[in-house]
Amino acid sequence: MDLSVDLDTRGDRVGAIYRALLEAIRSGRVAVGDRLPPSRVLARDLGVARNTVATAYERLVAEGLLEARVGDGTYVGDLAAPAPAPRHPGALDPRPGWTFRPVPVSGEGPSPPYDFRAGIPDAELFPFDTWRRLVAAELRRGAHHPGRYASPAGHPDLRAAIARHVALSRGVAADPDDVVVTHGTQQALDLVARVLVEPGDVVAVEDPGYPFARELLASYGARVVPVPVDADGLVVDELPPRVRLVFTTPSHQFPLGPPLSLARRQALLEHANRHRVAIVEDDYDSEFRYTERPLETLQALDRHGRVVYLGTFSKSLVPALRAGYLVAPRSLRDALVGARQLADGFGSPHEQAALARFVADGQLARHVRRARAVYGERRELLLRELARLLPGLEVAPSVAGLHVSATFREPTDDAAVVAAALEEGVAVEALSAYAVAAPVTGLVLGYGAVETESITPGLERLARLLASGRAR
Amino acid sequence: MDLSVDLDTRGDRVGAIYRALLEAIRSGRVAVGDRLPPSRVLARDLGVARNTVATAYERLVAEGLLEARVGDGTYVGDLAAPAPAPRHPGALDPRPGWTFRPVPVSGEGPSPPYDFRAGIPDAELFPFDTWRRLVAAELRRGAHHPGRYASPAGHPDLRAAIARHVALSRGVAADPDDVVVTHGTQQALDLVARVLVEPGDVVAVEDPGYPFARELLASYGARVVPVPVDADGLVVDELPPRVRLVFTTPSHQFPLGPPLSLARRQALLEHANRHRVAIVEDDYDSEFRYTERPLETLQALDRHGRVVYLGTFSKSLVPALRAGYLVAPRSLRDALVGARQLADGFGSPHEQAALARFVADGQLARHVRRARAVYGERRELLLRELARLLPGLEVAPSVAGLHVSATFREPTDDAAVVAAALEEGVAVEALSAYAVAAPVTGLVLGYGAVETESITPGLERLARLLASGRAR
Repeated sequence: MDLSVDLDTRGDRVGAIYRALLEAIRSGRVAVGDRLPPSRVLARDLGVARNTVATAYERLVAEGLLEARVGDGTYVGDLAAPAPAPRHPGALDPRPGWTFRPVPVSGEGPSPPYDFRAGIPDAELFPFDTWRRLVAAELRRGAHHPGRYASPAGHPDLRAAIARHVALSRGVAADPDDVVVTHGTQQALDLVARVLVEPGDVVAVEDPGYPFARELLASYGARVVPVPVDADGLVVDELPPRVRLVFTTPSHQFPLGPPLSLARRQALLEHANRHRVAIVEDDYDSEFRYTERPLETLQALDRHGRVVYLGTFSKSLVPALRAGYLVAPRSLRDALVGARQLADGFGSPHEQAALARFVADGQLARHVRRARAVYGERRELLLRELARLLPGLEVAPSVAGLHVSATFREPTDDAAVVAAALEEGVAVEALSAYAVAAPVTGLVLGYGAVETESITPGLERLARLLASGRAR
Repeated sequence: MDLSVDLDTRGDRVGAIYRALLEAIRSGRVAVGDRLPPSRVLARDLGVARNTVATAYERLVAEGLLEARVGDGTYVGDLAAPAPAPRHPGALDPRPGWTFRPVPVSGEGPSPPYDFRAGIPDAELFPFDTWRRLVAAELRRGAHHPGRYASPAGHPDLRAAIARHVALSRGVAADPDDVVVTHGTQQALDLVARVLVEPGDVVAVEDPGYPFARELLASYGARVVPVPVDADGLVVDELPPRVRLVFTTPSHQFPLGPPLSLARRQALLEHANRHRVAIVEDDYDSEFRYTERPLETLQALDRHGRVVYLGTFSKSLVPALRAGYLVAPRSLRDALVGARQLADGFGSPHEQAALARFVADGQLARHVRRARAVYGERRELLLRELARLLPGLEVAPSVAGLHVSATFREPTDDAAVVAAALEEGVAVEALSAYAVAAPVTGLVLGYGAVETESITPGLERLARLLASGRAR
């Protein structure tokens, strides 16, 4: 325990230590039941005689603020008032352009009984024992250079493993040098935005779409233009003029679901090439696809190097790993690695080495195969039960991922439905919450978090709620 | 193994699979010696008959590109040409304002024999066994919500542990809610810059100072003004007009060494309060102090809430942990948590929980005490040997940290000395490399990475080099 004691006053050292301890107790910095360092240790740290500290301790013991336990040590006693000092609210305000407020996340609070929230994979399927073994193996002295500062681009083994993984699973052509490891899709987009977006630049996002992408781009001063989505995905013809960057989810439009059609893919690439636009392809959950014919990624179709491809292990494994990646054209490589260096230095070398082994050993592919079987079963059940129990909802077609979206056939206040459903223990999301200008109302239903046997009872509750007319 | 195969052509499925495999081999996406998935598995993934895949495999075996090993599987054969397809350089350039290029870091390449590089702690001192046990204990199914998205501010236990740690060790007054856990000082400053700095804002940094702070602030469009440093630290009188934010290292000026004097601390706080300036106090390595009288932190002296305090575990433990924190006035709390959410979502819950236990159990304090004894010994030896062997260097006074700085008494090209020294196996850093306008030449000598017994021979080599006149 280090204790901040001002010993500048030559004279009363016992008093100075006494006052510092008193202040620490009074301010609540040390709490009732805390053990103080032995007087010998504190004395050495402060460069004073042991007796000086012991005397200060004794004074506080006499006052009942400390408690000496024979053969054990000195503890903060019951009389110590734990009231923290009242503190100023601060005199610093965010800059005028900063408007984002943190959004509650799925990890806060207990799980609802029927948890259809989107984007949450089933952590029960993740092979924790294997992962723990791999991490522990890397956490040995000498395994890396833990005292030193590693490459911002990521561990070489992980970059190589990711390059092979995206080549094999998604047809993405990448050298290991094209890969930058990130803490997930959000950080990958952050690096891209740093490097590409000047304040005032026009950027396009899908509407409805991923709110954190919108907010992030806006926080860099971009003019964010929402572009409509239809059954073929992003409506490329509606891209605004002088757009600098397009953020899109071609495999599984988020949150609606349809893949971007091949004709639209080609149109988007042509548009990008003609107007010097950057395309950010977010392939967030395409490992889980339920068709044998995935469309080629924009990155694979791109002949000119206008696509930055983003992938994540948050869906294919679990978000707690905090691992994702981007694959960038060579012309952006240095800038993106530099952006990572400025953003947060570099990622954890031992976690990255463990993940490299996990991917290279085929554990990722094995997990994806197993999880896809489970998710596929839940998905089929969900679609069947939606059709049976909730005919007022029209399910949007999709071929991949961990959720489906469905729109209401009749005008419905989807936010009210979501709020009422939560009171019944059913967590779903409102489609309108993802929209800026798009007139969509409906529900987003995830099948990663929900147990298979909870799907039918959860939808039954939802159906009863809608039939009751309580939430319109 | 997932393989991207376009089966849109109804007709020749064997041919489509054959061509996809061929392309994967030719492009180097699968390498010589790689094992292909069993035909049964790939067939199921692609939704075709097993025989379709087997026929495609056989064709490639006949051509020598695959190799069937009886009782084992199908492997990529020696004839498979591993040449990757030539690829376009890309057609995306960074925005005009993006000028930063990544900087080589200490973790790349082998250690030099006499490693006096600054800022590297001795990883041999870190209790890896304890750490591994704590991490493994948290990496169990159900320990957290690994499938869900956690709080951007950090694990509650870690925020509480940090609040107590900074209160006790540095006199910093903080509630757990005032703490945001980050991946280190760099990310902490990044969050602050996002929230406080508009393009065109004037920000002040120390000169010489920390280059990554300078570069980061510039990347947000700030006008970065270098402010001189003297024996009392930052020269507060030289702050530019209309400054929005001051980045400073009061405990141990980086890289020169002196602490900011108490008079300067008070002047800086007064200035900040009068002109509505934000102060960012980077307390990067002050856990290692070699005096019994640390000055109070700016955060503790601040009566108005104008200070954001940054701390890191990169020096007190090891950089590989990727853990640091900021303590902010209440008025910035939401904005900073939101900034973290936009930057990269949140940090690893199990790593944060393990670190919380490490700090709360007193392991951090124990490690700091032990490491400080080792560093103190090295420091004394280094100072003694510098005086004895290198009288042409004048050591700048400092009372904390993992390095000392020394200026040349005669005009000397310090970069040339550093380059010549590295050829002799001695890694030191040039003071001028940290300066913008300050006319300093000298050496920065770390004592975290260097072994105690290497200090004298390393300095002897350096002395011989300087005496030889080869590097002037």
